[in-house]
Amino acid sequence: MFKVPDHQVAGHRASQGVLGPLIDDSGRFYKPLQSDERGSNEVVFYTQFSSNKEIPNHIRKFFSVYYDTQLIEASDGSGLLPHLVLEDITSTRTNPSIMDVKIGSRTWYPQASEDYITKCLMKDRQTTSLPLGFRISGLQIYGSEQSGYWKPDKKRVLGFTAEDVRVVLRKFVSSNSSDDFGTEPDCAFAAAVYGGSTGILAQLLKLKAWFEDQTIYHFYSCSVLMVYEKEPILNGKSPSAAVKLVDFAHVLDGQGVIDHNFLGGLCSLIKFISEILKDQPHDLTKDNSGSEIACANDCNKI
Amino acid sequence: MFKVPDHQVAGHRASQGVLGPLIDDSGRFYKPLQSDERGSNEVVFYTQFSSNKEIPNHIRKFFSVYYDTQLIEASDGSGLLPHLVLEDITSTRTNPSIMDVKIGSRTWYPQASEDYITKCLMKDRQTTSLPLGFRISGLQIYGSEQSGYWKPDKKRVLGFTAEDVRVVLRKFVSSNSSDDFGTEPDCAFAAAVYGGSTGILAQLLKLKAWFEDQTIYHFYSCSVLMVYEKEPILNGKSPSAAVKLVDFAHVLDGQGVIDHNFLGGLCSLIKFISEILKDQPHDLTKDNSGSEIACANDCNKI
Repeated sequence: MFKVPDHQVAGHRASQGVLGPLIDDSGRFYKPLQSDERGSNEVVFYTQFSSNKEIPNHIRKFFSVYYDTQLIEASDGSGLLPHLVLEDITSTRTNPSIMDVKIGSRTWYPQASEDYITKCLMKDRQTTSLPLGFRISGLQIYGSEQSGYWKPDKKRVLGFTAEDVRVVLRKFVSSNSSDDFGTEPDCAFAAAVYGGSTGILAQLLKLKAWFEDQTIYHFYSCSVLMVYEKEPILNGKSPSAAVKLVDFAHVLDGQGVIDHNFLGGLCSLIKFISEILKDQPHDLTKDNSGSEIACANDCNKI
Repeated sequence: MFKVPDHQVAGHRASQGVLGPLIDDSGRFYKPLQSDERGSNEVVFYTQFSSNKEIPNHIRKFFSVYYDTQLIEASDGSGLLPHLVLEDITSTRTNPSIMDVKIGSRTWYPQASEDYITKCLMKDRQTTSLPLGFRISGLQIYGSEQSGYWKPDKKRVLGFTAEDVRVVLRKFVSSNSSDDFGTEPDCAFAAAVYGGSTGILAQLLKLKAWFEDQTIYHFYSCSVLMVYEKEPILNGKSPSAAVKLVDFAHVLDGQGVIDHNFLGGLCSLIKFISEILKDQPHDLTKDNSGSEIACANDCNKI
C-alpha cells in the first residue's frame, strides 16, 4: 500500500534501513516525525496553522493540506512510527519538474543551541544561502521520455555557486536541459512557467506581499517548492505551475516582527526569476495558454 | 572655523584626544577617514556613487551630497588628516529630532576576516539586529526649550530590547517624550512625521522599491537616519521629515544580487512604523500641513 515517492528531490529518501517519507495511491504523503523536537514542532505547526483563522485563503493554498498524524510502518523497518499525513503535491502530475529552494540567508535562530548555530552558519557560508539569501536543496528537470530527468545528486547541488544557481533557474524552464552544464539554456518555457497571471513569479509575489505583513511565524530552514509539467505546454495547455512551502520543523513564533530573513531571501529569488523573464524576446509575452505573462507588470512592481 | 557637531547621535564624538567629525558654518560636514581600509572604502563609494548614472534622482536625495576629500586639522590634535566633505544634514534645522537606525540583521560580509565576523556576529546577537533586522544606534528627541533633548547614552541605546525599540519609535513622534520610559508616548506627531505623502514612511517605501531592484551595492553596517523638527508642526508647518542613508565604510559590489540583508531589515522597520500609524485615531488622517497621510494606502501596499 505504501511506496517510496518517485519525485522526492531533497531530504532523506526511504529505503531498507533508511527512514524517509512514503506515499499511497490516494494522493497522500506520509512524512515520518523526526524523533527530536523537530518532529513535534512540525506537528504543532500544521495543527495550529490548519485552524488559524488569520491565514487568508490565497495564502493557505501555498501550504500542503494537512490531514492527520498517523502511526504507520516506518520505511527503515523500525516498526510503527508517527507520520504526518499531508497532501502529495505530485500525485496528480505526470513527469513533474521540481525545484526545492531553501529560503533565507540564515537557517538558524538565536534560541538554538550553539552547536546547531555553528553547524548551520557553516553550511550557510559554504552554500549560496549567505550571498544569495537562498540555496537550491534539490531538483529534477524533466527532459523527454527518451532522456528522462536531469537530477544532480545532493553533493553536486549543495556545491552550486551563485552563477550555477543563475544557470539552473534558466535550465529549469528550458527545452534543452537534459544534459549537464554544457549547453546554453534556451528558456523556451520561461514565459509559460515563470510568467503569466498564474505563473510562478505571480505566485511568489503574492507570497511576498503576505511576508511583508505577517508577524505570526518565522520560517527557518523552510523551502519554496516550485513544480510544473513540461508536456502540457507542448500541447498548448497549462503547465500547472505551483509554488508550495514545505518543511516546518523550525517555525518559530514571530512575536510581532516580520520574518525579514525569509522575506529578504524570497525577494532575491523573485529578482532572479524576473530577470529571466525580462530577457525573453517581446514576442513571447503571451504564454501558451493565451494569457499575458506577468513580466512587464511584475518587473515594475518588484 | 571648524566645530564639533551639536546633533551627532552615533559614532565617536570629536573632543580633545578623540577623533570625530566636524562641521563648519557653511553647512558642510567633515568626516575623518578611518585609517584602515574603511576610510578608503568610503571615499571610493562616494566618488563612484556621485558619478553613477544608474542612480535615479529620487534615490540620490537619500544620500548626503559629497563635495570632496580635504586635508584638515583633525579633532584629536593629531595634525592634518583627510576628511570626507559632505552636506551637513542638520545645518538648516533648529532642534532636530534624530534617530540613527543600523539596517540589516547581519552587519558582516562573507569576505571579512574571521575576527571581524565573530565580533559583528556577537554584537548582532546581543542587540536587536538579529531578531528585528535593525538596531537603533543613537537618537535624540527634542522635547521643548525647557526640557531640551532626550538623548540616552550609547550603552543604554545598544541595550534596547525589541520592546524598547517599539516604544522608542513611538516616543520619537510624541509630545511627551522628554522623560525616560515612564510615560506612555502619545504619538501626537505620528501622522505629521511618519505619515503623509512626504513623511518618513513614504520615503522608506521609495527606498524599499529601489532595494527590491538594485543589484549594484550591498550596504553592510549602513544606517538610515530619520530627522524632523517638532516646532514647525505646532505652528501648522511641515516638520521637514527626512530619511538619509549614512556610513558607507562597508559597501560591497552587489554582483548582480539584491541586498536581501538590508531589504529585509528595511521592511521590518517599515512594518514597525506603519503599525504606529495604524494605531492612530482616524480623525488624525490629516497631518498638520493639510495633506492626507500615507497610512491608509501604504499599509495596504506593504
